[in-house]
Amino acid sequence: MTETQSRTVAFVLYPGLTPLDLVGPLQVFSVLEQTGLGFRPVVVGAHTRPVGTDTPLLLAASHTFAEVPDPYAVIVPGGDVPTLRALADEELLDYLRRVAEPAEIVGSVCTGSLLLAGAGLLDGRRAATHWAYRDVLARLGAVPVAERWVEDGRFVTAAGVSAGIDMALHLVRRLAGDEMTRLVQLGIEYDPEPPLGPIDWSGPEAAVLDGWSDRSVEAAVRDRPELAARLLA
Amino acid sequence: MTETQSRTVAFVLYPGLTPLDLVGPLQVFSVLEQTGLGFRPVVVGAHTRPVGTDTPLLLAASHTFAEVPDPYAVIVPGGDVPTLRALADEELLDYLRRVAEPAEIVGSVCTGSLLLAGAGLLDGRRAATHWAYRDVLARLGAVPVAERWVEDGRFVTAAGVSAGIDMALHLVRRLAGDEMTRLVQLGIEYDPEPPLGPIDWSGPEAAVLDGWSDRSVEAAVRDRPELAARLLA
Repeated sequence: MTETQSRTVAFVLYPGLTPLDLVGPLQVFSVLEQTGLGFRPVVVGAHTRPVGTDTPLLLAASHTFAEVPDPYAVIVPGGDVPTLRALADEELLDYLRRVAEPAEIVGSVCTGSLLLAGAGLLDGRRAATHWAYRDVLARLGAVPVAERWVEDGRFVTAAGVSAGIDMALHLVRRLAGDEMTRLVQLGIEYDPEPPLGPIDWSGPEAAVLDGWSDRSVEAAVRDRPELAARLLA
Repeated sequence: MTETQSRTVAFVLYPGLTPLDLVGPLQVFSVLEQTGLGFRPVVVGAHTRPVGTDTPLLLAASHTFAEVPDPYAVIVPGGDVPTLRALADEELLDYLRRVAEPAEIVGSVCTGSLLLAGAGLLDGRRAATHWAYRDVLARLGAVPVAERWVEDGRFVTAAGVSAGIDMALHLVRRLAGDEMTRLVQLGIEYDPEPPLGPIDWSGPEAAVLDGWSDRSVEAAVRDRPELAARLLA
């Protein structure tokens, strides 16, 4: 399959993001790429120099935004305060608007959906995000849904951080079928075994984290009146 | 808490690795760090310039090996052919031997256990690895175990790729208790929902991948007689 026949899946990198949001689905699509079906993951950013994350790891994109003007799919990872601040990054939002128009799939992981919403792409659409940020997503015009991932037309959005792995496997299933999905799942040995089982949403821990997103929004809008208008609506 | 009171968890970066092996547990420990208990994740490498991975993403370490001579814990990610070739990287193996001696926890994800074994650290010990590489792990002197993660003394090793998330949560549980583990799990919203359910180990897909590790070993030992002696035993 030649380059021109391949379908490019662009993962968006920007400073301060949560690397697992990006790397989970990227790893899934990198295994899919090896099957020779023509899916080609790339990592796109404003430049290709290393940028910081919310961990000590630094990440560098493989391509600039300008080098990937027309991807088949685009997937936007999330993060905490830096992602909220990225709502004022017009170069990033412009790229999202430009590529989302012709793309077959426009996706996000975690608070990446806030950036899609901030770019005006999720108005009235059902969308997922990190559980602590559903009200913020609503303020940006989307309709938050408490699902692991949700599809609304070309838009597919995942819940927080690790949900990007499940969403990516769902996309593989849609694009390449069940057998290929099982192969990719074997490749990344995704047979989850959380030591304490699944999340107990009725447990007391969620209350401990109450106010998390409010504090992050406050930190993000400090000295940024243009963000305050959007995030404190 | 001062720097000297913190417990450093060193994640080892080397060229060509599988980024999800590293980023899964790194994200878990980065959330744990925010709780203020004094755990400090770092990413260590031979240098801090970006290195390639088995995806288009490039990663850069936060510290050099020399800057982190005495971590509380060290965790080694895996990969495919580049990880096998890293068995000939004496600078990397020397670092593992040097820090493993005093470390409280010596861990690996996926084929990272081959590097611990290659450094002579797993002789006769029970260890996990990517399911396709258990026989290679045995050739390097360890006793392969088909578990999501396994502890043998100070050594804790995980199965393939995504298993590093489960192993890291297990470590958080051991180090900080159940409540903290549930908080971290909420932070990364780890409530797995593989679209086709858990892996069916009796399914036909594993057979499709038969011979995978043999082909990778062949590719890794080409022109590397010193590796052939160890990996083709």
